[in-house]
Amino acid sequence: MQRFFKNFSIKEVRVVQQSNKKRVVILGAGYGGVIAAQGLGKLAKKLNLDITLVNKHNYHQMVTRLHEPAGGFAEGDEVRIPLKRLVNDNVKLIKDWVEAIDPVNKQVTLKEQVVAYDYLVIGLGSDPEYFCIPGLQEHSYTLRSLNAARLIKTQIEGSLAKYKVESQSEEGLLNIVVGGAGFTGIELLGELAEWLPVVAPKYDVNVKDIRLICVEAAPTVMPGFDEELSIKAADILRNKGVELKIGTPVKEVTQDYVMIGDEKIPTKLMIWTGGVRGNSVLEDSGFTTQRGRANINEFLQSTNFEDVFIIGDSSIYYDENGRPLPPTAQIAMQQGEHLVHNIERLLTGQEMTPFVFINRGIIASIGPKEAVGIVFGKRVSGLLAVYLKRLVHYRYLFIFGGIPLVIQGFLGQFIPQVSIKSDYTTLNG
Amino acid sequence: MQRFFKNFSIKEVRVVQQSNKKRVVILGAGYGGVIAAQGLGKLAKKLNLDITLVNKHNYHQMVTRLHEPAGGFAEGDEVRIPLKRLVNDNVKLIKDWVEAIDPVNKQVTLKEQVVAYDYLVIGLGSDPEYFCIPGLQEHSYTLRSLNAARLIKTQIEGSLAKYKVESQSEEGLLNIVVGGAGFTGIELLGELAEWLPVVAPKYDVNVKDIRLICVEAAPTVMPGFDEELSIKAADILRNKGVELKIGTPVKEVTQDYVMIGDEKIPTKLMIWTGGVRGNSVLEDSGFTTQRGRANINEFLQSTNFEDVFIIGDSSIYYDENGRPLPPTAQIAMQQGEHLVHNIERLLTGQEMTPFVFINRGIIASIGPKEAVGIVFGKRVSGLLAVYLKRLVHYRYLFIFGGIPLVIQGFLGQFIPQVSIKSDYTTLNG
Repeated sequence: MQRFFKNFSIKEVRVVQQSNKKRVVILGAGYGGVIAAQGLGKLAKKLNLDITLVNKHNYHQMVTRLHEPAGGFAEGDEVRIPLKRLVNDNVKLIKDWVEAIDPVNKQVTLKEQVVAYDYLVIGLGSDPEYFCIPGLQEHSYTLRSLNAARLIKTQIEGSLAKYKVESQSEEGLLNIVVGGAGFTGIELLGELAEWLPVVAPKYDVNVKDIRLICVEAAPTVMPGFDEELSIKAADILRNKGVELKIGTPVKEVTQDYVMIGDEKIPTKLMIWTGGVRGNSVLEDSGFTTQRGRANINEFLQSTNFEDVFIIGDSSIYYDENGRPLPPTAQIAMQQGEHLVHNIERLLTGQEMTPFVFINRGIIASIGPKEAVGIVFGKRVSGLLAVYLKRLVHYRYLFIFGGIPLVIQGFLGQFIPQVSIKSDYTTLNG
Repeated sequence: MQRFFKNFSIKEVRVVQQSNKKRVVILGAGYGGVIAAQGLGKLAKKLNLDITLVNKHNYHQMVTRLHEPAGGFAEGDEVRIPLKRLVNDNVKLIKDWVEAIDPVNKQVTLKEQVVAYDYLVIGLGSDPEYFCIPGLQEHSYTLRSLNAARLIKTQIEGSLAKYKVESQSEEGLLNIVVGGAGFTGIELLGELAEWLPVVAPKYDVNVKDIRLICVEAAPTVMPGFDEELSIKAADILRNKGVELKIGTPVKEVTQDYVMIGDEKIPTKLMIWTGGVRGNSVLEDSGFTTQRGRANINEFLQSTNFEDVFIIGDSSIYYDENGRPLPPTAQIAMQQGEHLVHNIERLLTGQEMTPFVFINRGIIASIGPKEAVGIVFGKRVSGLLAVYLKRLVHYRYLFIFGGIPLVIQGFLGQFIPQVSIKSDYTTLNG
């Protein structure tokens, strides 16, 4: 940890109350946090706001697309955008980690400083849920960040290289196990199934020697999703050579093998996508949570502290039928938008309005050439779904960065130099 | 090991004596072995020979260029040539490992079969020499094969990825130690010094956080080489940011650190280029050896068994002043050529002639843009040396594969699809 900050001296910096400005601190630059920072940034002068966005990276990462750099087709710049391109100058950016929130004294402890607030927006996303499966946390990889995605890619290439060096070769080196067949798992499997036949020959490995195994405790892939499409997704994956072990829980993970039911599968690479819980900072900071996700009211305020708004995966929101909304980017973005609207009303003496989720649907890509989904209540698959998925991405780029980002995102597919780049190696900024 | 051969049943196959043909078995398709197989292949009908070339890969690898794929600028096809492109149809190819030689019963035990011979040519190259340094063999990488080079590359990329994933980061992850500042070490350092600034930003790592350290027990880099050029090479490396620790022995290696003199350097990547000894099969098979290199007479025959010829790094040859020739590709190739000449004379009842080494010089490249060397007794460096080095490579391609290979090797630099390719993933062939 020390090394991340070797150019800094450890110090405490308090954001000093500037005149009568309201200090709004946004934690996390995910799908919800960026939308909130953009919207509030535009209202900063009108509402007399002092806005700070805290994020562990100096970029926003498209978490829903991390399967692409995990399979080696993308390098990284395709799935992230520098924050300074996304928010205006009214938003102060701090690159730091959130260690604790003190909602009583209205301040947040970061690794490098302490930040005080009048209003806090928490969009810290989720952590993996390991369900107390022995060894799972210690011996698995996750797909929670671009860096984690790159690590998966390098581990796979490392295994391919090791396999051909006799003194380094070990049992199970070419067995890749993906735990969980939800959206993340399915999209990762689809990507790996396309990438492995391309990368294996680069290391002289016959792709037939590689096993790509998916294990899911629920009785179908994509549990809770449309049944017909789930079956279709399973068929597509099987045709790509993925071994699906459905209705079978992971029992134990060690550094040498995975126990799937009663079957012992030797492996050095277990990737866990089987569940999420809210970011642990909330639970640890005294918020009432359910599986780590904080309770909020219909205005998106914490049920514990009304000057704290919590959006995205970090909170849990119940629809009109009393069912919790799933943790998706779509909901986070709509909540980010609604939060801006509510803070504006709050600060201008109007009543806040309740959040209502508009379900536009969801599409899972299974490799670059296949997708299944539901769009405005209708089933889509095949090429149509692939194009709609691309459209969803452009819509997202448009919401985030307007026409310039859409053009760059589009051209970047063909001309790598045009992709959204920045210098990410510097320690701050 | 089993996996390499899963499509075979283990069986013994003896090469049956066909009529009155002389069975010549060549072990190893390195620089010497290929030249021998090519030359003998052309004489097969005239001399009534049954020729077999045994090699652990179905390709010849340019061991002197392995620093290129170790740094990620080359993928592999640049530094190998499929054997079936190099030898004619008179040479039977066997892809297998040599386990033991029985020079009394005139047969060679491979992993999958036993091969009998009338004349044996051994060109099995060398093994690393670890000088009994504690932990060195267990905890170091070598640059002895394309697969090993790729492993170094994937280990470096894996470390860069891990460095940015907090839960995986460890001390010394960005310290790369190269043990030995001979030709291999220098060329590897030069390549890494050029490649690291390119690859680090791909993982968001600031290249300044990486340490590239070279340790050499002798008092200069390139021990035994021209002093002026050694100093020049050291200056070039230092300017590229390499830390040179000269005149300091490696004392101990563990999986977490290297002891260099009294200094403890945390590292996960120690690459050992500090010395070679002859392939251990020779010692184990009853040949008289010096540091693993078998003794031969002036006709390149084993001093123990006159129907066995030993060339290249596997044997040790003394020049007219009684000094042993160093293990280089140049000597191996000249010996391969001379061996063909001598076998022809032997089988046509003429007297064999003694081998005489013609020293054309040697050039070390230090990254793609620098080189130092001696050519026909004259010092060269800078651009001239870079071009001469390239010329040496084209000369080698010409000797090996004639004009077509030179053209392909030249175009392959610019058009990857034209590089010398084949399917290397299959188990035999």
